[in-house]
Amino acid sequence: MLINGKTYRTVWMADGLIHAINQLLIPAEFEIITFHDTSEVVDAIRTMVVRGAPAIGALGAYGLAQALQQLPRLDMDAIHRIKSQLQQTRPTAHDLAHGLKYVLDHIGPARTLEEMKALAVEAAETYAESSAKACKQIGAHGNALIEDGARILTHCNAGALATVDFGTALAAVRMAHYDGKSIFVYVDETRPRLQGSKITAWELAQEGIAHAIIADSAAGHYMRSGDIDIVITGADRIAANGDAANKIGTYEKAVLAGENNIPFYIAAPLSTIDFQIRSGGDIPIEERDESEILYIDGQRIASPTSPAMNPAFDVTPAKYIRGIITEQGIFKPEDIKTLADRHA
Amino acid sequence: MLINGKTYRTVWMADGLIHAINQLLIPAEFEIITFHDTSEVVDAIRTMVVRGAPAIGALGAYGLAQALQQLPRLDMDAIHRIKSQLQQTRPTAHDLAHGLKYVLDHIGPARTLEEMKALAVEAAETYAESSAKACKQIGAHGNALIEDGARILTHCNAGALATVDFGTALAAVRMAHYDGKSIFVYVDETRPRLQGSKITAWELAQEGIAHAIIADSAAGHYMRSGDIDIVITGADRIAANGDAANKIGTYEKAVLAGENNIPFYIAAPLSTIDFQIRSGGDIPIEERDESEILYIDGQRIASPTSPAMNPAFDVTPAKYIRGIITEQGIFKPEDIKTLADRHA
Repeated sequence: MLINGKTYRTVWMADGLIHAINQLLIPAEFEIITFHDTSEVVDAIRTMVVRGAPAIGALGAYGLAQALQQLPRLDMDAIHRIKSQLQQTRPTAHDLAHGLKYVLDHIGPARTLEEMKALAVEAAETYAESSAKACKQIGAHGNALIEDGARILTHCNAGALATVDFGTALAAVRMAHYDGKSIFVYVDETRPRLQGSKITAWELAQEGIAHAIIADSAAGHYMRSGDIDIVITGADRIAANGDAANKIGTYEKAVLAGENNIPFYIAAPLSTIDFQIRSGGDIPIEERDESEILYIDGQRIASPTSPAMNPAFDVTPAKYIRGIITEQGIFKPEDIKTLADRHA
Repeated sequence: MLINGKTYRTVWMADGLIHAINQLLIPAEFEIITFHDTSEVVDAIRTMVVRGAPAIGALGAYGLAQALQQLPRLDMDAIHRIKSQLQQTRPTAHDLAHGLKYVLDHIGPARTLEEMKALAVEAAETYAESSAKACKQIGAHGNALIEDGARILTHCNAGALATVDFGTALAAVRMAHYDGKSIFVYVDETRPRLQGSKITAWELAQEGIAHAIIADSAAGHYMRSGDIDIVITGADRIAANGDAANKIGTYEKAVLAGENNIPFYIAAPLSTIDFQIRSGGDIPIEERDESEILYIDGQRIASPTSPAMNPAFDVTPAKYIRGIITEQGIFKPEDIKTLADRHA
């Protein structure tokens, strides 16, 4: 992605150190943060210094590879402990499990500590590289759905910063823009953490793509007024039946799109699909701290004694999803099953 | 309403001065503000020191009565100028037009300046009193819809502070609580101005009613999870066909309630109904400044160069509304026509 005219990825590794864009400071500041060990990686995922399902999948892979560099001997128990420590940082995104498993699978043949270290780094690099490539392909497939003049609604940030590069929903938007299509993006601010206002809008501004931020509540109004042609969001985990978990509020946008005959698409790499999970009801939904609702920048914005409830994700049933845009093309939710068979 | 154990109304008049609770300071501070002339009243409505359709209806009536006390002679042109000055403060709420018209109609018989002044104050007092009484009756009718154990969703603030007293949607909630019913209220925070977090939650806390604040985006998730039994909101203007304009996001909640077979009710006094307007498409929607989306307490919370769009209201078509709870009982939206005939 292009930031202040320079090319970046969200997360990368060099000489045993992991570097990432600090997403907590965007849009106010642009900072590269460095992680030296597992505890720093765990903190970064938990506090959302790095967020977005594909991005934390890659960070998980790098994090495991880094931890293995620091092992004194080939100790499979220790490796599994580190893996579950990384795994438990955030429960909803499937890519994290996918990235960790990828590295673990690839160190299997190692006979020596040195061999294992080399294989782990190679696997993490391959994982991140193929994740970026998948997003680029998602963009190409998604671009085909976006007509010249299209007004697109997106929720949360499914941009380059949510992935290693390019984004998922925003990859499609980027490719349409690069193709010279005139497009306009309605950006849901995405309470409580405002990833729409802070990150998606910032990415679009960096690329010079026309957009406006709206309150999450205004999306339905614009759909009903005929101002939105297509809705595209990302996903954190997709069940085998096509139900998709994504940022809280995605379900609302999908229902409203359906009600107003506007196509609703999910853009996500195949690594987001959890073939072990039959339907959305089985996807664990992370409940985050109430302070995200009650405070902004340390300032209380609510009645002083009132509690809040803060589910971070919701599940959009497959019936509201027109298609899932993946690196292998656009699938109807019911066709996920075919992919499952292919993966079996 | 009870505030810190003392009884208050939102707005009242004494000795030619208008007093009101400063809603911009709630919940951080509780302050009574005094208006000395029309320009102060106009400012208060525009900046939302006093907000909520019935409350600004009463403030409009008091404001016109106060202005008339300050006239040097019986000058109908001046009176109409003041009326339209007050009228133009906010375009969507119908109660404002209603309150102003009520005072104007009642000074008609006056032959002298003194007579007109006395009639104006009397009319404003009667209007405010009957507005409070209507809300109490709305509460009684709405209470009948709330079962013991009910989990209620509300959006924005349709509480005592949005009216002269009692509230509309919250009047029903209050009456259910006074009746000893065990209830729980999900409070949409209501971006961008957070009237849910700041005002509704504060009113409920003052009354000791169990509640939690949620992101607007989370309401659909709770509806789908079976955690919400009934949705009740207020309205700023209702068209003759039963379409209702209310705070941005109300339309989304109504569609989601329908999708999840949860009854969606509007609670509003008859003064909210604009029989001159055939359908919701003709209700003017106020577009407020983008700064409400981009800043909180003067701090920018969004990408530095991104614009925002900020419609303050949306229209919920009658087909999503199970009933309109008024001081004269609960009407199906299609029966508003009957009322229109009665008013003709």
